[in-house]
Amino acid sequence: MTYCVAIMLDAGMVFASDSRTNAGVDQIATYRKMHVITREDRLIVILSSGNLSITQSAINLLELQSRSDDSNRTVHTAGSLFEVADLVGNALREVRRRDGPYLLQNNIEAHASFIVGGQIRGEPQRLFHVYSEGNFIEATPETPYFQIGESKYGKPVIDRVINRHTSLLDAAKCVLVSFDSTMRSNISVGLPIDLLAYYNNSLRPGLVRRIDESDPYFNMIHTQWGEGLKRVFAQIPNPQWNDAG
Amino acid sequence: MTYCVAIMLDAGMVFASDSRTNAGVDQIATYRKMHVITREDRLIVILSSGNLSITQSAINLLELQSRSDDSNRTVHTAGSLFEVADLVGNALREVRRRDGPYLLQNNIEAHASFIVGGQIRGEPQRLFHVYSEGNFIEATPETPYFQIGESKYGKPVIDRVINRHTSLLDAAKCVLVSFDSTMRSNISVGLPIDLLAYYNNSLRPGLVRRIDESDPYFNMIHTQWGEGLKRVFAQIPNPQWNDAG
Repeated sequence: MTYCVAIMLDAGMVFASDSRTNAGVDQIATYRKMHVITREDRLIVILSSGNLSITQSAINLLELQSRSDDSNRTVHTAGSLFEVADLVGNALREVRRRDGPYLLQNNIEAHASFIVGGQIRGEPQRLFHVYSEGNFIEATPETPYFQIGESKYGKPVIDRVINRHTSLLDAAKCVLVSFDSTMRSNISVGLPIDLLAYYNNSLRPGLVRRIDESDPYFNMIHTQWGEGLKRVFAQIPNPQWNDAG
Repeated sequence: MTYCVAIMLDAGMVFASDSRTNAGVDQIATYRKMHVITREDRLIVILSSGNLSITQSAINLLELQSRSDDSNRTVHTAGSLFEVADLVGNALREVRRRDGPYLLQNNIEAHASFIVGGQIRGEPQRLFHVYSEGNFIEATPETPYFQIGESKYGKPVIDRVINRHTSLLDAAKCVLVSFDSTMRSNISVGLPIDLLAYYNNSLRPGLVRRIDESDPYFNMIHTQWGEGLKRVFAQIPNPQWNDAG
C-alpha cells in the first residue's frame, strides 16, 4: 500500500509520501514515491501510488522522452502544468497498454495513480490528480488537496484543519499527523516519509525532509496527538441515560 | 453504505448501526440494520451490512425457520451463539445461492455481512463476524470489537480508547464518536443510529436508544470532539526546520 498527500495553499504547497512497498506480506521494501523535477523555470513534484512496476516505468518513460524529444512536449519543457499532467497520464496509459494484459493473465491489476503538482514560470502553482485510466482533475480552492493510496485514516484531520489560508508549516504539521494516523491503522504504510514544502513563486524546493524512525519532531507528534485525543475523549461527559445500569 | 460496530467488554456489549441505505445517489432511504432477538434465555443482536435485499431475505429466512422448525436449530432455540452464527451464515449462503446469479447478470454484487452477538443462558457472552461467504470469526479479548461497512474513518478512536476493561458508558460514548467521524467523511452513512448496550449475564437489552438529528448528547459529542481535535492540533508546536522560509 501507499499513502501520498499534496496540499495547495495560498502560501505554497506541501507534498508527502510514504516509502513502503509490499508484494504480499513477505516481500516488503522501501522505495521512494516522490519524484522531483527541478529546472530554472520549474519545480514539479510527482507522487505515485499503485503497482510499482507500472509507476516506475511511467516515470522512466517521462525521463526518456525528455532526453530524446526536443519538442516542448516533455516534463522538462512543457509550458504548463496541465500539459505535464497530460504527459504523465499518457505515459501511464502507454505502460498499462504494454504490461497490463500480461499482468492480467495472473489476475494482477495494473492500477496506478499520480499526484502532479508544482509551478512553471508564467503560471500560478497547480495541482493535479492523475487517475489509473490516465485522465486527471485539478485541485481548486474549495478542495485544495489530493490523497492517493490508503487515504481514509488520514483524511479527517486534513478536513478539519486545512484551508487555503493555512500556513505551510501548519500544513506540514497536519500532513505528519495525517501520516501518523494512517500508519497506526495500516501497517503497509511505513516510514520514511518524504516531505517537500514549496513556497509559492519560488520555483525551487523550499524545505525537504526525509523523516525516519529517529525523527524527534515526528515522534513528538505521535505522542502528543495520541495523548491529546485520549484527553479530549475523557473530557466529553458520559451519557446520562436513565435506563443505563 | 453502512456503518455498524459491536464491542465486547467485561461489563457487557455495545452494538450500534446507522440506518442509511442507498441505491445510487438518488435513491436514499432509512432502514433499520439492527435486529434484536429476545427470549427469556437469550439476547441476540444481529447487525447487517451490504445488499439490502440479501440481508433482509437472510433475516427473514431465519425467522421463518424459527416458526416452521421445532428442532433446536433456529436462532430462537440454538444452545450456543456459535450455532446462531452458523445459522446466519447458512441463511446468507442460501439467499446468495438463490439471488446471486440474477444479480450478477446486471453486475450487481450480492455481498453482505453480519455481526452476531449476545448471550444464551449457560454460555458467556460472545461476538461473531459473519463474512459474505458465510464463514465467520469470533471476537477475543485482544480484539474485542468488529466493524462492518464503512469501517476506516471510525476505527482510530476505537483502537485508541477501547479495551476489555472499558465501561459500557465509555464504550457507548466511543461508539458515538466513531459514528460522528464516519458520518463526517461518508455521506452514505447517516442518522438515526440504533444503539443497544447489553449488561453481561442480564439476558435482556440494557439501554436502547435511537439517536436522530435532535439528540442533544450526540450533538454535544459532535461539537466537543471537533473542537477538541483542533485544540490538540494547535497545541502541537510547529516544526523548527532551519531551511523553512
